[in-house]
Amino acid sequence: MYGQIEKVISSFIDLDEREFAYFTSKLQVQHLKRKELLLVEGQVCNNSYFINSGCLRYFYNVDGEEITGQFFFENGWYADYGSYLSGKPSDQNIEALEKTELLVLPKAALDKLFIEIPKFEKFGRLIAEKAFLGMRQYTEMLTKQTPEERYLNLIKDRPKVIERIPQHYIASYLGIKAPSLSRIRKRILENK
Amino acid sequence: MYGQIEKVISSFIDLDEREFAYFTSKLQVQHLKRKELLLVEGQVCNNSYFINSGCLRYFYNVDGEEITGQFFFENGWYADYGSYLSGKPSDQNIEALEKTELLVLPKAALDKLFIEIPKFEKFGRLIAEKAFLGMRQYTEMLTKQTPEERYLNLIKDRPKVIERIPQHYIASYLGIKAPSLSRIRKRILENK
Repeated sequence: MYGQIEKVISSFIDLDEREFAYFTSKLQVQHLKRKELLLVEGQVCNNSYFINSGCLRYFYNVDGEEITGQFFFENGWYADYGSYLSGKPSDQNIEALEKTELLVLPKAALDKLFIEIPKFEKFGRLIAEKAFLGMRQYTEMLTKQTPEERYLNLIKDRPKVIERIPQHYIASYLGIKAPSLSRIRKRILENK
Repeated sequence: MYGQIEKVISSFIDLDEREFAYFTSKLQVQHLKRKELLLVEGQVCNNSYFINSGCLRYFYNVDGEEITGQFFFENGWYADYGSYLSGKPSDQNIEALEKTELLVLPKAALDKLFIEIPKFEKFGRLIAEKAFLGMRQYTEMLTKQTPEERYLNLIKDRPKVIERIPQHYIASYLGIKAPSLSRIRKRILENK
């Protein structure tokens, strides 16, 4: 149950056995069916989620259209970090795209861990820095890359997305229309 | 020299006198004249800067046009946080809009402080969280608010910008053309 999160946590900080056991005592397990929603816009995101298995997608509703914001896979973390930090309602909807197992870490528990085991501050800092860089990278993709560059970089950097995510969600994530993505894929295959 | 930064740091973490003296021993003072550049695109941002007095603006060059990204005033911090964290060249240009005095904290020094005085990890976490929320807020302003809402919120939330920054930079920061901003200002004055 905790083997994967132990590996990920220990890539950030060194915890001894007792500390790790205390940490896992704060976690809850949650299972989602395919297409099940974890969070709906208007709710506050009061947890962070470690993905043991499966895959999450978040999307916004803009003028009646779903805009896909990001995909998260096993061994990754998800939170609507803006809502999580600010306590404001989320504008994200999170759904499982596959059968998914999550370890839920309530914000109140992590805030307490910062005080009880101060080395968690380093974990918190590194997570916050990663979140900043992730958001910046996504903004740059949308503002500085052509649709074809976006898709080629996705193939190179995140093959899981190509393998496991339906085309129309990928198109939405890349900020392009589904028929444009089909044309780009055709062009890439022909040039191979 | 260090009175202001002491107040700001102590709003994040408790340092004793010896720790604060050790911290300030890592700082360098830098003075900028009005219009002087601090960082030019293509350079890596290896420092964070605390502003003792004055004001900084950063801008991007997009197709030969300057896009203003943000303003920073006394008692605030500036870094191109993306470049700072990733070590990649910055696409930002930073200039002083007023005569400015900075305290320079090299990244290498802060990284060492994280190890030598672990409570700096909390400072690092809170700064990273603030940076995330700041970027998110700016993106939301550009994507979810009308030009008039953007300007009204600026008046409400950041009067220093209205008082001290030339109109054409404010227009660029709000993502609108200078004549549109003039019309918005006229409309607001007439409705008062």
